[in-house]
Amino acid sequence: MKPESLQVTGSFKIRGAYNMMSQLSPAQRRKGVVAYSSGNHAQGVAAAGTMLGIATKIVMPQDAPAAKIENTRRLGGEPVLYDRYTGNREEIARKIALEQGSELVPSYDHAQIVAGQGTVGLELIDQCADQGVVPDQVLICCGGGGLSSGSAIAIKARSPGTAVHTVEPAAFDDTARSLLSGKRERNDPTARSICDALQTESPGELTFPYLQELAGAGLVVTDDEVRSAMRFAFRHLKLVVEPGGAVALAAVLSGKIQTRDKTTVVVLSGGNVDTDLFAAIQNEDAV
Amino acid sequence: MKPESLQVTGSFKIRGAYNMMSQLSPAQRRKGVVAYSSGNHAQGVAAAGTMLGIATKIVMPQDAPAAKIENTRRLGGEPVLYDRYTGNREEIARKIALEQGSELVPSYDHAQIVAGQGTVGLELIDQCADQGVVPDQVLICCGGGGLSSGSAIAIKARSPGTAVHTVEPAAFDDTARSLLSGKRERNDPTARSICDALQTESPGELTFPYLQELAGAGLVVTDDEVRSAMRFAFRHLKLVVEPGGAVALAAVLSGKIQTRDKTTVVVLSGGNVDTDLFAAIQNEDAV
Repeated sequence: MKPESLQVTGSFKIRGAYNMMSQLSPAQRRKGVVAYSSGNHAQGVAAAGTMLGIATKIVMPQDAPAAKIENTRRLGGEPVLYDRYTGNREEIARKIALEQGSELVPSYDHAQIVAGQGTVGLELIDQCADQGVVPDQVLICCGGGGLSSGSAIAIKARSPGTAVHTVEPAAFDDTARSLLSGKRERNDPTARSICDALQTESPGELTFPYLQELAGAGLVVTDDEVRSAMRFAFRHLKLVVEPGGAVALAAVLSGKIQTRDKTTVVVLSGGNVDTDLFAAIQNEDAV
Repeated sequence: MKPESLQVTGSFKIRGAYNMMSQLSPAQRRKGVVAYSSGNHAQGVAAAGTMLGIATKIVMPQDAPAAKIENTRRLGGEPVLYDRYTGNREEIARKIALEQGSELVPSYDHAQIVAGQGTVGLELIDQCADQGVVPDQVLICCGGGGLSSGSAIAIKARSPGTAVHTVEPAAFDDTARSLLSGKRERNDPTARSICDALQTESPGELTFPYLQELAGAGLVVTDDEVRSAMRFAFRHLKLVVEPGGAVALAAVLSGKIQTRDKTTVVVLSGGNVDTDLFAAIQNEDAV
């Protein structure tokens, strides 16, 4: 397990945001930055802004988990809320950026973001090596593909024999389908999933070619398998994992990939989940 | 934070159990061992038994958290249930031990148990040193005093200037009172607390003199402060911490000790909590 739920801001997203924002010029820093995010990227940008002294405005869906909106504010960011099903967050963010002359901090399709998120892959290979282990396979959740492509680049550079697999929720399996078809497939715009952190429209323009070159078959899990994995994490790992952060664990537990006699690393990418949802899932009977 | 909730079996108890049981003779090992425990020690003994090939019988209160009884069985132990308010677990365990010629694995009052639990203190000082930090104070939960006395011995040997404080639930503050009076005080036998792991009658005969020599004033927290600390751990640390494991964190959050400009280490001693109780606490409004 690589528990990025324990990372600063409760997810891996601080890695990419900090990497990009720390490379802005003093003039760019003074103008602040803008981002759009379903939540974890928002917190990463807000926290990186506070660390670097950069003002941050973050366009967030108004139905994002309350904890994520609240935490973005607490970390020093300014949330700008919009309606997920009528507004276009990208347009709203670009408009603010244009008005302010600010840089936009994208959530995945940017080389410095990909490189930052990729330190997850770099670290897990090094941490395995410290224990004398070379992983056979690494399972990484995939929304836009920043974490998975960046990690794949690092993992394959350090350990070419290690397989990398993306894992997605069933309704947002664009990357799995794209890896099969060879072109960037889109998700049904009416699709819904419990995994609020993984609801992207299609694989990234920058990230997808890396996954095509470096990743194996994409794995897909149902929301029920995700709920079950969250219960497992609570009961046996004593970790709070959010739905999107639990898909890779769900893939292992539901037998979507062969793990017998293999060393498998599972990235638990985040732990930002509302109390109500978490409690409801824990109280469900089935395991 | 020293999160022993992430330890094998979900608490620090495996440390002492393994240390003692690994030193049994082959003849003693063949006869199995017996223990009595409210739960975490039970799991530690069961897991150590499985690792070492020693059969384990564990006398447990029938109202212990279901997860603890279940896990003891899953880890290879055989639970022997009794009524906490009418039976005497010590007598029941001694009778089984006598009948079988088995060793009793005490939950705290034994040199090898104390030494094993003390590796928590040893590790945390070393882990702080790796980061160039010498802690000013370490807060450790206290039931019978195995963890706190063992850790105090290790901490004071490595870092004489570091203060060690025990933390107890308000209804089970025997150690705090004993440290004040200079003799082993007892708790009201009708006392109740949410902290099922810390419900001992009095400080240990072996452990208390070490605490008298090495520990500062004992800290005491209410059950409500513990509930609040469990919510904090969920929301901000993304860790599942059981009531007894959250008392040291509760002491910090409720201002029972001065932390400004100090480096404070908090031991989170375990994470074995029933789903129902955990969900109920998370859903409570106050933070």
